[in-house]
Amino acid sequence: MDFEEKNLKRQEIFHGKIFDVVVDDVELPNGLGQSKRELVLHKGAVAILAVTPENKLIIVKQYRKAIEAVSYEIPAGKLEVGEAGAEMEAAARELEEETQYSGDLSFIYEFYTAIGFCNEKIKLFLAKNLEKVSHPRPLDADETIEILELSYQECQAMVEKGQIVDAKTIMAIQFYGLTCGGI
Amino acid sequence: MDFEEKNLKRQEIFHGKIFDVVVDDVELPNGLGQSKRELVLHKGAVAILAVTPENKLIIVKQYRKAIEAVSYEIPAGKLEVGEAGAEMEAAARELEEETQYSGDLSFIYEFYTAIGFCNEKIKLFLAKNLEKVSHPRPLDADETIEILELSYQECQAMVEKGQIVDAKTIMAIQFYGLTCGGI
Repeated sequence: MDFEEKNLKRQEIFHGKIFDVVVDDVELPNGLGQSKRELVLHKGAVAILAVTPENKLIIVKQYRKAIEAVSYEIPAGKLEVGEAGAEMEAAARELEEETQYSGDLSFIYEFYTAIGFCNEKIKLFLAKNLEKVSHPRPLDADETIEILELSYQECQAMVEKGQIVDAKTIMAIQFYGLTCGGI
Repeated sequence: MDFEEKNLKRQEIFHGKIFDVVVDDVELPNGLGQSKRELVLHKGAVAILAVTPENKLIIVKQYRKAIEAVSYEIPAGKLEVGEAGAEMEAAARELEEETQYSGDLSFIYEFYTAIGFCNEKIKLFLAKNLEKVSHPRPLDADETIEILELSYQECQAMVEKGQIVDAKTIMAIQFYGLTCGGI
């Protein structure tokens, strides 16, 4: 069985700061004919499961326009142009900007957030041995955030109550529960 | 501290079958001025962690144009118009169409896949007591898929090797490991 969808034509719809949008005409495999694929193209991002020496997880409270509500998430940030291959440095920068912590970073795994229509890939890092930075880099000018330090049990309760609804954050909390003896 | 970003203007960019795109001008809280938010608006989706009587997880192999590669994922599907509030029925339909199984469904949790720029919300269901349907509903005409039944250990190994890279699928596998004695 063949799976690949061959590209026949790409129509450029939108060129934004955060993402681009295209519509591809594709030839389906196995003689199924043609179809269209609406796609969001994104440069990718990093996210950080940051654990304090007291085994608290760092959670960022912030407003998200996409859902018109406040959200509780692990620290994260988009990759800038030219940062492919330098994701760990980007993760260290985002951690410092958002939380004023630095730490020892290690790669956990990477994943696509919305694979049905978007190529955004997030690389998830674990940050341990956190230390407060004395002169941290400033936040982006359009960010208003608040930093919380929560136990694994507190995070799990927020997931169960529907207070944490961000996929990457639920993934990181579950990973912590499975691997770091969080239960 | 105020978090809300008030809408000043919305520009409609794209009206698609899968998603719409808008750009909002917002007034930032705390006197930070104005900014723009590029947003992908999506009707939402359902996904199903389907567990066979032999404790195998159902995984769908399929091509994903967004990443131009084959992907291994739990069964899932977009909500149709008017299906808000009827997500469990949509999950049962997707499970049957993709896997030819029916089962007893229960709600696990819901999450936003790409909260920084997109409002796609996925409701995740657990399906147990699976039974093969004798006359299953047909697949969508543009879908080519293959169904696998994998143990938790096989799924975890595929996550570690980077063969499973879909966020909702990693979430479901981790949830199974944490709650269903998968370890």
